[in-house]
Amino acid sequence: MKNFEYYNPVKIIFGRDTISKTSKLIPETARILITYGGGSIKKNGVYDQVKNSLKNHIFFEFGGIEANPDFDTLMKAVELVKKEKIDFLLSVGGGSVLDGTKFIAAAALYEGKDPWDLLTQKKTNKIEKALPIGAILTLPATGSEMNGFAVISRRETKEKLTLGSPLLFPKFSILDPVTTFTLDKRQTTNGIVDAYVHVLEQYITYDVNSPLQDRQSEALLKTLVDETPKLLKDPDNYDTRANIMWCATQALNGLVACGIIQDWTTHMIGHEITAFYGLDHAQSLAVILPAVLKHQKENKLQKFSQYGRRVWHIVNKGEGRSADELVYDIALEKTLSYFHQMDVKTKLSDYNITPENFQEIADRFDERKIKLGEHQNITSKEVMEILHLAL
Amino acid sequence: MKNFEYYNPVKIIFGRDTISKTSKLIPETARILITYGGGSIKKNGVYDQVKNSLKNHIFFEFGGIEANPDFDTLMKAVELVKKEKIDFLLSVGGGSVLDGTKFIAAAALYEGKDPWDLLTQKKTNKIEKALPIGAILTLPATGSEMNGFAVISRRETKEKLTLGSPLLFPKFSILDPVTTFTLDKRQTTNGIVDAYVHVLEQYITYDVNSPLQDRQSEALLKTLVDETPKLLKDPDNYDTRANIMWCATQALNGLVACGIIQDWTTHMIGHEITAFYGLDHAQSLAVILPAVLKHQKENKLQKFSQYGRRVWHIVNKGEGRSADELVYDIALEKTLSYFHQMDVKTKLSDYNITPENFQEIADRFDERKIKLGEHQNITSKEVMEILHLAL
Repeated sequence: MKNFEYYNPVKIIFGRDTISKTSKLIPETARILITYGGGSIKKNGVYDQVKNSLKNHIFFEFGGIEANPDFDTLMKAVELVKKEKIDFLLSVGGGSVLDGTKFIAAAALYEGKDPWDLLTQKKTNKIEKALPIGAILTLPATGSEMNGFAVISRRETKEKLTLGSPLLFPKFSILDPVTTFTLDKRQTTNGIVDAYVHVLEQYITYDVNSPLQDRQSEALLKTLVDETPKLLKDPDNYDTRANIMWCATQALNGLVACGIIQDWTTHMIGHEITAFYGLDHAQSLAVILPAVLKHQKENKLQKFSQYGRRVWHIVNKGEGRSADELVYDIALEKTLSYFHQMDVKTKLSDYNITPENFQEIADRFDERKIKLGEHQNITSKEVMEILHLAL
Repeated sequence: MKNFEYYNPVKIIFGRDTISKTSKLIPETARILITYGGGSIKKNGVYDQVKNSLKNHIFFEFGGIEANPDFDTLMKAVELVKKEKIDFLLSVGGGSVLDGTKFIAAAALYEGKDPWDLLTQKKTNKIEKALPIGAILTLPATGSEMNGFAVISRRETKEKLTLGSPLLFPKFSILDPVTTFTLDKRQTTNGIVDAYVHVLEQYITYDVNSPLQDRQSEALLKTLVDETPKLLKDPDNYDTRANIMWCATQALNGLVACGIIQDWTTHMIGHEITAFYGLDHAQSLAVILPAVLKHQKENKLQKFSQYGRRVWHIVNKGEGRSADELVYDIALEKTLSYFHQMDVKTKLSDYNITPENFQEIADRFDERKIKLGEHQNITSKEVMEILHLAL
């Protein structure tokens, strides 16, 4: 096991009828900005629950934060924050709203010229202050509710970049599985795929003797695999929704990453796919992951065959390399079937994407001087190969 | 899944050569009291590492905190804290030192007459203030390094009681597995048994549809089962020590308890066994647990047979009740063998304990109006039965 630090001070409030607790979690004197997305919270009753809880608080609203929250949209919220002297942000929605809110929290107190620098020049523009954030989560997927990370897009330049700071941990996150009943199938399955790939990106690298973390990752994956068909069959089952929601939170709260080596190749290439072609985040992951697994078989053999045996119960009496290779291939098939079971596509060509922009995508990693993968061995050349494998 | 709240702000610093980070984690102006136990930290180099890190800090020392930390000992530390205007406590040692330090932290700022009331009259004497605590852990066992609980003994009255508060979370806990190389076999195996039983007390109750938590518990148990023989064979293996240490921390940091029903019968009776007969904490657990499992077979059938199948790979092709009962019995045998493998005894008679004091022990639960177990169905009568089963 490698040395690590783990710190996660987010207070999780999980369960039915918990949104009413919001008012007690925010200082009475706070000037709150409620941030939200396309307005579904006004249809499904969540907004009314929040408003009811905050009836003795002062709050403002900022709606319209889109999936893959956009810099230009968020900067309008920053203006509002400054104008109304907002000192607490309450994100009501899914991971995009919350990620956008995290950016608002940092950008509102940023003293440099252009808050975009927080994403592009992270070394010289560290986040030193941020407004406090609370979250009411309505879409289990990104894990943003229990971490200090955010992903922000800029449609103008077709960019999608990350930021992170301990200052961006929500003070609290309220997770009421009932709020997820009204998600449509695409939102639901996108969320499951996102959580699943989060775990794989952390787990499927190389062995550093971390058996507990391996099994904790497998616990998440196996639970998602078991619960998914139940959810597809009965989307209004509270327990199934609750189990999926708690998996998604824990898939990216830092715990399974303790003391291990992580990958994130699929996410980094996937972000470009979303930025270039407009695929949903989870759609991009489901397309890129299989290609990365094919391309990196040599490096990921031990962990991915272990995953095959433990999560998919692939029994292979053989031992050693050839047995692992066989299990690896079956595990990949099982993973694809799992995505297909949710009607999530696993090839770029399923979206009619052709290779014209591949070189431009690949070159970006060289431009940003980023090498991908747990071995830092994936440069633009390998990105090109992976993109072609994803066709 | 039941509604729950989860909040755990302890910063974990895990790995080799991490004690040197202590100074950066404590305010420069702090007046520190370093608390420790029997002095092993002065022999194994830990004390020197701490002292070296704190060379620019002001610190005082309080040694001699015993296993099952005693109220009278701790009150001497409280005196010292007040006299020297201590404002930060640094626990260097195992769970007993840390538990004792937590009590000191609360007692030093307690405004009532007798700090013992913090343990006996918890409803009316809630902890409202506590000194900040840091921990350098040298014995993986209790999980105290990542929770807000403590267990305090009073030899004068043969009592052993718990206290807990979010104010008692350590600000940080440094876990360097190298510090555990010098533990003797009894300390090492006691720690493993303690962690193992912590998980079972949370996991082996009844089903509330919490598949993730079940699997997270199994991840801890399975890892302990796999790592224990390696540790017995090669006690100086860093990775094995690290894996055991991380398991012990996570066994009682609240995570596997999220949304489920817990038991703690074994601990509650075990505390009395320690208070009456002086058995080590873990020794008391290893004796009482099998008796509780025999006595509560009806109630724990589903979870304990699941544990047998998943952690011990007991294959039983049958289904339903009789198959579960068979697996249950084999799982109990496997658990006993696991303890015996560590030379930990599993019967009261192994310690020459006879039933003379059993009624006095059992009556205490009635006196304190405590009913035990996940169904709150264990009163003095059942405690008597369990104690006899433990003979």
